[in-house]
Amino acid sequence: MENLEIKRLLINYKTLEEFENFREYGAQELSMKEDLRANIIEGDSESPFYGIYYGNKLVARMSLYRIDKKYDFYFEPKQDYLELWKLEVLEPYRGKGLGEALVNFAKSFKLPVKTNARQRSDEFWTKMGFSGLTYQQERDRGENPYVWFPEGVSEQE
Amino acid sequence: MENLEIKRLLINYKTLEEFENFREYGAQELSMKEDLRANIIEGDSESPFYGIYYGNKLVARMSLYRIDKKYDFYFEPKQDYLELWKLEVLEPYRGKGLGEALVNFAKSFKLPVKTNARQRSDEFWTKMGFSGLTYQQERDRGENPYVWFPEGVSEQE
Repeated sequence: MENLEIKRLLINYKTLEEFENFREYGAQELSMKEDLRANIIEGDSESPFYGIYYGNKLVARMSLYRIDKKYDFYFEPKQDYLELWKLEVLEPYRGKGLGEALVNFAKSFKLPVKTNARQRSDEFWTKMGFSGLTYQQERDRGENPYVWFPEGVSEQE
Repeated sequence: MENLEIKRLLINYKTLEEFENFREYGAQELSMKEDLRANIIEGDSESPFYGIYYGNKLVARMSLYRIDKKYDFYFEPKQDYLELWKLEVLEPYRGKGLGEALVNFAKSFKLPVKTNARQRSDEFWTKMGFSGLTYQQERDRGENPYVWFPEGVSEQE
């Protein structure tokens, strides 16, 4: 695909309206909307969302957030890592590599990446070089943790 | 409905096979299967799952797990609470109050209950007496936290 560009999404009314097109829409987006309305954040503030546009239309997005080392129960050595969630491509734009492009972007920071794999998406994550972790009841509470290890990083014992 | 009985699910090959009928199937179930195969757990061990049977068929389930007070970032006063996940009723059995029965069972312990509301399920949780919490980026990381407060309990500041 030509001109496939990943943009950090700025919070403004246009972005928030675009978010409503995605299935995974919830407290996070509502909270951004309230903060903007109440002037708690300024328009065009940076968000943890990254996305891909087709023309003016947001067609794929993910949330990517750097988690402090002290909350790392996944990686050895213990370190800052990226939590990836709400990876989603709008239905008519699937099969064009947009999800892959977003995940590769996440990997480009050279930090470990952790996600909670959606139901039966294991094949996708494996293809992207992620590994499923050993399930730990207390830590995972029903999540399907999949992680990507940069060189020299392994699973925490 | 007559004879609606909620059972704590025992881990055995029959239960694990039934779990495959549910959409939300993942690391948790696979880990149980491995533990059973490797004799790490005995057959008919207790699981965090509760379910409802129609005859011999498991048609609804949820996972319910008591979380220690030290991990409570939701409730005031800080206390043990129940985390509820994987609430699911098989398609042909929906609209019969099975989901409601499971949630009411969770509430019957008189502990606070917390869940991560699935996409656009807010109406269901509100009907069940749950409230959406103020989204906190660091704590919630894309979750839609909904909670049920027993008497005398409120949202943690």
